[in-house]
Amino acid sequence: MSEPPNITFLDSPAASSAAFGIASQRGNRRHVVRIGGTAFGDGQFVVVAGPCAVESERQILEAARLVASAGGHILRGGAFKARTSPYAFQGLGLEGVLLMRAAADATGLPMVTEVLSQHDVEIMEPHVDAFQVGSRNMDNTALLKDLGQTRKPVMLKRGFASTIREWLLAAEYILLGGNDQVVLCERGIRTFSDETRFTLDLAGAVLAHQQTALPIIIDPSHATGNPALIPALAAATIAAGLDGLMVEVHPNPDAALSDADQALSPEQFHAMMERLRAFAPAAGFRM
Amino acid sequence: MSEPPNITFLDSPAASSAAFGIASQRGNRRHVVRIGGTAFGDGQFVVVAGPCAVESERQILEAARLVASAGGHILRGGAFKARTSPYAFQGLGLEGVLLMRAAADATGLPMVTEVLSQHDVEIMEPHVDAFQVGSRNMDNTALLKDLGQTRKPVMLKRGFASTIREWLLAAEYILLGGNDQVVLCERGIRTFSDETRFTLDLAGAVLAHQQTALPIIIDPSHATGNPALIPALAAATIAAGLDGLMVEVHPNPDAALSDADQALSPEQFHAMMERLRAFAPAAGFRM
Amino acid sequence: MSEPPNITFLDSPAASSAAFGIASQRGNRRHVVRIGGTAFGDGQFVVVAGPCAVESERQILEAARLVASAGGHILRGGAFKARTSPYAFQGLGLEGVLLMRAAADATGLPMVTEVLSQHDVEIMEPHVDAFQVGSRNMDNTALLKDLGQTRKPVMLKRGFASTIREWLLAAEYILLGGNDQVVLCERGIRTFSDETRFTLDLAGAVLAHQQTALPIIIDPSHATGNPALIPALAAATIAAGLDGLMVEVHPNPDAALSDADQALSPEQFHAMMERLRAFAPAAGFRM
Amino acid sequence: MSEPPNITFLDSPAASSAAFGIASQRGNRRHVVRIGGTAFGDGQFVVVAGPCAVESERQILEAARLVASAGGHILRGGAFKARTSPYAFQGLGLEGVLLMRAAADATGLPMVTEVLSQHDVEIMEPHVDAFQVGSRNMDNTALLKDLGQTRKPVMLKRGFASTIREWLLAAEYILLGGNDQVVLCERGIRTFSDETRFTLDLAGAVLAHQQTALPIIIDPSHATGNPALIPALAAATIAAGLDGLMVEVHPNPDAALSDADQALSPEQFHAMMERLRAFAPAAGFRM
Repeated sequence: MSEPPNITFLDSPAASSAAFGIASQRGNRRHVVRIGGTAFGDGQFVVVAGPCAVESERQILEAARLVASAGGHILRGGAFKARTSPYAFQGLGLEGVLLMRAAADATGLPMVTEVLSQHDVEIMEPHVDAFQVGSRNMDNTALLKDLGQTRKPVMLKRGFASTIREWLLAAEYILLGGNDQVVLCERGIRTFSDETRFTLDLAGAVLAHQQTALPIIIDPSHATGNPALIPALAAATIAAGLDGLMVEVHPNPDAALSDADQALSPEQFHAMMERLRAFAPAAGFRM
Repeated sequence: MSEPPNITFLDSPAASSAAFGIASQRGNRRHVVRIGGTAFGDGQFVVVAGPCAVESERQILEAARLVASAGGHILRGGAFKARTSPYAFQGLGLEGVLLMRAAADATGLPMVTEVLSQHDVEIMEPHVDAFQVGSRNMDNTALLKDLGQTRKPVMLKRGFASTIREWLLAAEYILLGGNDQVVLCERGIRTFSDETRFTLDLAGAVLAHQQTALPIIIDPSHATGNPALIPALAAATIAAGLDGLMVEVHPNPDAALSDADQALSPEQFHAMMERLRAFAPAAGFRM
Repeated sequence: MSEPPNITFLDSPAASSAAFGIASQRGNRRHVVRIGGTAFGDGQFVVVAGPCAVESERQILEAARLVASAGGHILRGGAFKARTSPYAFQGLGLEGVLLMRAAADATGLPMVTEVLSQHDVEIMEPHVDAFQVGSRNMDNTALLKDLGQTRKPVMLKRGFASTIREWLLAAEYILLGGNDQVVLCERGIRTFSDETRFTLDLAGAVLAHQQTALPIIIDPSHATGNPALIPALAAATIAAGLDGLMVEVHPNPDAALSDADQALSPEQFHAMMERLRAFAPAAGFRM
Repeated sequence: MSEPPNITFLDSPAASSAAFGIASQRGNRRHVVRIGGTAFGDGQFVVVAGPCAVESERQILEAARLVASAGGHILRGGAFKARTSPYAFQGLGLEGVLLMRAAADATGLPMVTEVLSQHDVEIMEPHVDAFQVGSRNMDNTALLKDLGQTRKPVMLKRGFASTIREWLLAAEYILLGGNDQVVLCERGIRTFSDETRFTLDLAGAVLAHQQTALPIIIDPSHATGNPALIPALAAATIAAGLDGLMVEVHPNPDAALSDADQALSPEQFHAMMERLRAFAPAAGFRM
């Protein structure tokens, strides 16, 4: 077993040293994670945005320009798509990754995209700025271990039925491989409530923020599936002191191939960014 | 069946007129509810605070002074306590209500306290500024109907396993009696998550805020049971544009007879109020 | 506080004696509860059946005859109906109770019906063989206390978001009044799953059966809302050793005024009873 | 995309033929799946049993002998263990698989063990009679696709927060690869209830049994974590007409390295098998 980096936190056999490592950072400073030139946990409130799925060269380039022009920091988009049904659109795969790479380079934004298969880790690594692990793979410890061996940052979504403790221990699988660049993303949990797609667990994210030095961001798009709620929840996120936001935007939401209803339109995205900037000073963030 | 007031909203047999009534208010102006001199839904972000239970003349008076001195607007406290176990402290009953009345009068704050029994409605009515209906009685339609016959405002907590639609329809039971002074309070839902006491459904509250003109406030104390999370969640509430907050404070939390762990200390309460005031301008509220 | 009867079980201040009281019954014999001439917990697997709502003299009489002819033991039906919406059919009220009384007397079955309001307890008591407390009122401790003062048995449904412990403590509110005739009924809990109306917690009911001497029965009609699942779940209930079953039957399901889809047809009810009789010997029950 | 086998069921682009394929089997006959010489869905109620984890040659051999002597049909045991914490015992890996193989061969039982990593599929395939996919990997579609390319049966556990529809679509990922040997196993869902480890969704399993021709079994050990509940739930499973049971047994539960509390002792396992045999005739099964 390799040496744990000094941001491990829970249940460690080397508890005395590792726990001290994390404890000394709590309240004092956050562990900083960098995706491309963008730093999480260093005073910047980070906005990651983009379409649910990469659909075409033109669509992802327009999306990247929209994100950049509104002041967003990182481009997101799905190339390998996790779909409930094998009959649903599975994404463009590596071609989608390359289209994202080009759009990111053209706009100067770093990019993050989901990895679904262990077989794809090596193939994707040269082309991505960060790997995303989706909610449905948070417990895929084999994939987490493989990502711990890479040197690209990992955005780890919380399983939609996972506890905070399980989420932090999933991060630990990556950290133990020697990769300490992990950003945690809360994206809603599954509850009895069906009037939003999932239930955004903002209090859980705040609790996690107090238990770990890793950056924590919120994805209100998947949490609610309802763009009308996102401006209020984005404002809530920055006011709560969390480290950033991941949202879906689409240059033309009505034409999206997947999750069409949940993407912000360009106008809504600009308005949300405006609102975040209004709250940033009181929240102690740069935007 | 009495004539529905013009803020009814859902499933009404008089849907054409009632739905129009509410629709015309949405986005334009909120329905204003007044408890004593404090108005919800009229540009003021309202803070309701006080101890979980009224314990003694001195304790509730100290609590009221704390609330008033920090800029809180309404005194809360439990006199008739809903307890899971019949062996747990059931509250001081009417004596507790009268102690609250005195503390409220001494500090100039209005007060709200929970009603548990239909038999108590008439007894309590002369002494309270508003009735609270707890989460466990949201579905007690017999009580809701009785409260619809009073002319005191009702603070209706969301059942911890109720949908937004069920919550609004519970309010409708009160409204239909002719009492249109209803404030809705989200206080956490029951989910698999056990690292906070309940799961605060902030997105659900924002959704409800878009579906009804009634004021919506948040109770992060019962939602989380964890005072360390409350400052962040209070800031999130005002940033999300909701109408107010209900929190537990105790002049001396360590000595509380019930739910000791979840009350804010005087220092924490002052700090929370400070933080709310910092966010109020960007959120468009007076504080 | 009155003396607890010797079937109290949890958190009792008189724990040493009360706990011993129940402990000595566990595994040895169940506490027997009688509704009319039918005993729960005495070797009989009890079937309680009837329509969701009493609709007319003819409908409830036909339902009672159906229940009796198929070998059911107790007639159920709603006269005061707990409805989410105040605009939904609220039941026939006292008239419905009297129609049920007549149908029960005509067929020799005892009957049970729900009480919603504290104001109705005295009014209903002379006419009913047992009170039912619905899932939405399990936490209505004021009503539970009033029922503890009556001498009619109470069928206490589990709150759809209540733990086993909370359910047993709700029973304790009745028991402490001196009324030890309480039957517990599991009717499904609210979870993320929406392919059945609620999630039947059979394992929870078995656990409760091991923790209390009070009889435990299952209501698969409300738990699932799907008559096609009921024969299998009825067989599961008797095989699991629980004390009985509550199901909805309707002489003509297609014409039901409420919850039409969830009632068994006469043919389905007869088939279910047949299946129960096939399993009764192996399960050690009389039918 | 390969041609769907004729047991596909949902959302198929070839819906007309595939849906007919399954529809014609519903109610008439089940799709039969064979693990070694044991057939699911062919009139046999199948019991899969064994320890949580393979710990040593001696332990797994004793467990296999216990399973065989009590009349169990298939040996289960974990070699590659899915653990929440990277610091917990991760299993013996391939060595554990080989120890299981030897114990299975020595007792004439077929065996099934969990696969966690795509890298292990080829390595394990020659040694196992069936692959198990655990609850935490149900959404790992990359692994499911790889297993669809093998010709060993797959026991697919339901994700603990997955709907029935999602579960059947996960099976579809395997079926579409051309591997039609899939057994579905319900093992409890995550709900607010914490008095059993998970909430066994028996009604959901019965519903799934009506929606697919694939065999459905129940795992009450993981669902409840409580051996005292298992005999009743095993009886409920056979009475409900499901196809089998997976339980944890340990020759010496007190010495188990993982999930010690949830395994049946040898005496409890024999008693459970006795009880199943008592119910088998009424349920229409061979045992």
